[in-house]
Amino acid sequence: MAKKLTSRSEDYSKWYNELVVQADLAENSGVRGCMVIKPYGYAIWEKMQAELDRMFKETGHENAYFPLFIPKSYFSKEASHVDGFAKECAVVTHYRLKNDEETNEIIVDPSAKLEEELIVRPTSETIIWDTYRKWVQSYRDLPIKVNQWANVVRWEMRTRLFLRTSEFLWQEGHTAHATQEEAIEEAELMLNVYTEFVEKYMSVPVMRGYKTESERFAGALETYCIEALMQDGRALQAGTSHFLGQNFAKAFDVKFADKEGKLQHVWATSWGVSTRLMGALIMTHSDDKGLVLPPKLAPYQVIIIPIYRNDEQKTAVTEKTQEILEKLRKVGISVRFDDRDTHKPGWKFNEYELKGVPIRIAIGPKDLENNTLEIARRDTLTKEVISTEEVIEYIQTTLEQMQTQLYERAYEYRESHTTEVDTYEEFKEVLETKGGFVMAHWDGTAETEAQIQEETKATIRCIPLEAKEEQGVCILTGKPSIKRVAFARAY
Amino acid sequence: MAKKLTSRSEDYSKWYNELVVQADLAENSGVRGCMVIKPYGYAIWEKMQAELDRMFKETGHENAYFPLFIPKSYFSKEASHVDGFAKECAVVTHYRLKNDEETNEIIVDPSAKLEEELIVRPTSETIIWDTYRKWVQSYRDLPIKVNQWANVVRWEMRTRLFLRTSEFLWQEGHTAHATQEEAIEEAELMLNVYTEFVEKYMSVPVMRGYKTESERFAGALETYCIEALMQDGRALQAGTSHFLGQNFAKAFDVKFADKEGKLQHVWATSWGVSTRLMGALIMTHSDDKGLVLPPKLAPYQVIIIPIYRNDEQKTAVTEKTQEILEKLRKVGISVRFDDRDTHKPGWKFNEYELKGVPIRIAIGPKDLENNTLEIARRDTLTKEVISTEEVIEYIQTTLEQMQTQLYERAYEYRESHTTEVDTYEEFKEVLETKGGFVMAHWDGTAETEAQIQEETKATIRCIPLEAKEEQGVCILTGKPSIKRVAFARAY
Repeated sequence: MAKKLTSRSEDYSKWYNELVVQADLAENSGVRGCMVIKPYGYAIWEKMQAELDRMFKETGHENAYFPLFIPKSYFSKEASHVDGFAKECAVVTHYRLKNDEETNEIIVDPSAKLEEELIVRPTSETIIWDTYRKWVQSYRDLPIKVNQWANVVRWEMRTRLFLRTSEFLWQEGHTAHATQEEAIEEAELMLNVYTEFVEKYMSVPVMRGYKTESERFAGALETYCIEALMQDGRALQAGTSHFLGQNFAKAFDVKFADKEGKLQHVWATSWGVSTRLMGALIMTHSDDKGLVLPPKLAPYQVIIIPIYRNDEQKTAVTEKTQEILEKLRKVGISVRFDDRDTHKPGWKFNEYELKGVPIRIAIGPKDLENNTLEIARRDTLTKEVISTEEVIEYIQTTLEQMQTQLYERAYEYRESHTTEVDTYEEFKEVLETKGGFVMAHWDGTAETEAQIQEETKATIRCIPLEAKEEQGVCILTGKPSIKRVAFARAY
Repeated sequence: MAKKLTSRSEDYSKWYNELVVQADLAENSGVRGCMVIKPYGYAIWEKMQAELDRMFKETGHENAYFPLFIPKSYFSKEASHVDGFAKECAVVTHYRLKNDEETNEIIVDPSAKLEEELIVRPTSETIIWDTYRKWVQSYRDLPIKVNQWANVVRWEMRTRLFLRTSEFLWQEGHTAHATQEEAIEEAELMLNVYTEFVEKYMSVPVMRGYKTESERFAGALETYCIEALMQDGRALQAGTSHFLGQNFAKAFDVKFADKEGKLQHVWATSWGVSTRLMGALIMTHSDDKGLVLPPKLAPYQVIIIPIYRNDEQKTAVTEKTQEILEKLRKVGISVRFDDRDTHKPGWKFNEYELKGVPIRIAIGPKDLENNTLEIARRDTLTKEVISTEEVIEYIQTTLEQMQTQLYERAYEYRESHTTEVDTYEEFKEVLETKGGFVMAHWDGTAETEAQIQEETKATIRCIPLEAKEEQGVCILTGKPSIKRVAFARAY
């Protein structure tokens, strides 16, 4: 049994790191900045993938797979794109190792140098648009709505499990359209898909908006985003959807003949979410006892732990449990029975609390006598004794409630940590004392944005889609503004 | 519409290459040796993944994810392993690009050189066993039964779509056990899982066996394999399962305390299948008109093509088709309706033949009058007119038949292309004239194996599990032998 977690109030960052490792979600590997996603963590990611994949397919997308490597020259073709990614690229320069005859060590074979270096993809716009050139001739070939599930590498100096790792898993959608309107519609559609997934499945409320110019994706004309708020008052970008205009089509010469036979450049979007969502999920709901998972993403929703003192009791309890297992599985509830003799019930209680299993059922000899079960809820840490007859309905209802209540709790936290301010003093004070989203007027310039960031470490997370128009003045410069934007310190 | 395929008899290899591209399965990318898997090809791979993943989970395995990169020093730890892979490694040496101020070009930043080079994984034994050291202390931590779906890179000089590419997709299982017996059992279990998948889902019969020492996986004590036979008489290795002994546990110092508290090295297996299976699937069943797919792996099993001359007919046909679509979907048959106005029915017929859709339904005004449908089977290229009433039963039965008959046809081909020979003359003649598996006695030495390969290009594909004991003499050396082994020229 792992030692007790550091509490959130003591050291939020330490709490997170310990939780990720102790709950068997992920750990650091022998490769700098690259993580191992452990089976329990990966099972959550698989559930996320399955739902997202279904939603992508329901909105008309297909999966495909493009190369891991991108020739260096491809990067140079879209100027702002290479600027954005050049500083964090893993570069393949050789294709062979050999035994050094002098030292008898394995070395890189200098004679196996690549003519052109290959970049391990940090994102795939360039290699994909190089391919789309071959796929698109006529308006009949459009739209292309393709997604890929893949690993990508961005060489990060400071890494944290799930939140910022040199290699991470993600999906990247890349679509090609005949018109600007259709491409913008697609970028917005995918923002909606992400919002629905994050709110309904992860129970994490998000603020929807678009990025300022300086926070845009390298190569995009508009970056839409969803921003979530963690329990320490910091924001976390949970997903982005980019309207890329004709930038990549021009860089890679992708044109189509329209209905009149006129050649035009294609319009593009790209959109992605990554294993970073795991970080958002963990940090939004978990507590000092460990992980708290929304039932829709829990690898198993119910754990049953038998209580007994002798073999006779064990047999009786096991028999009863088999009935309950069968009943629950029949209605599609995922449930496990931990009948290991190697660990005591108390140890198991702690273990499954740490791992965030939504519901724990304990069943002992007394329960057999009374035809009852003891049920514990992970989110509220409350216990209740129910009659065995009501187990299915009780658990179904409770799981549904948990899914909703976790969302509501996070929503209330978000609302109570979203503050409108009108002066720079107030702005700084709110950031220091309570954190969260600070809604303030901004003059729209990159200079002001940069100065505020330098002085307060807060960035503009987004210009909210729902922002109402109102007259105001920039908190830093006093220049006029017609909308509040959302500032926060962020992950 | 693509041009006609080269026929198999004319040029089998050209036929394969054209088919893969024209049926929209995959294509070469701008990166040497790396392919783009197109949506239609990827949809087949997804179906394979889904079934395999289900089978792995049903046999007690969990998924996880390990880093893409492997530090160079890890490779050196298992001597035969590094020998096996050193010559085909993509090596990352730098982690940053920069703008060259003189030439204004993007170059690799020489100041961003890694202290230790990273190898893009060609397989993950080393990084995984480095991790297992942390996971295993006691017998209670065993077994570990983990699988990962991943991309791997082996720098190949001659590549062919799906069959041999520098980057490919695969799954790799890596298990850790307390005893030798349990590890061998696991390696055999997974060979059985692969056999079941390839035979039941891909309709491809396989020969099961183990590899000779010189064909074993680098680091294995035993390599089990399944070998399939393509229509040109060449064999294709479809999957391997390795018993690794304690080699990796010793190299990475992975020990466990047994029940008596004694420290022992852990026993290992690994096993994998890759996108190479796509090559096997394509080459086993397809014909000169294009792809032929077993119904269980077809992205869609039925295509419906409307025939009409005017809007009125179109409306009537569409209405009728909607009924049929609904009925078929209700029973779980995947079906698409191609009502595009941009292409003629004849074009569509060819297109879906090329893409191997198992069943084509054509429905026109005459069918409405007679309450009939025209049904065409892709595998036999036969057509039949049936009454609309029987559509569900007819299609269900036909799909089942196709799945079985494709297997039977391939099995008959394999049987008629498996030849027992007793002399080297006969051996060479069979290889030249009919190909296939040549079952011959061999003296068990690597020298003989190498000489036969040099002289005939045939390798020992496997020592069949089912080989009966019989007295014989090696076809090359005349030395005694007690079993025939399976030779073939191979992909």
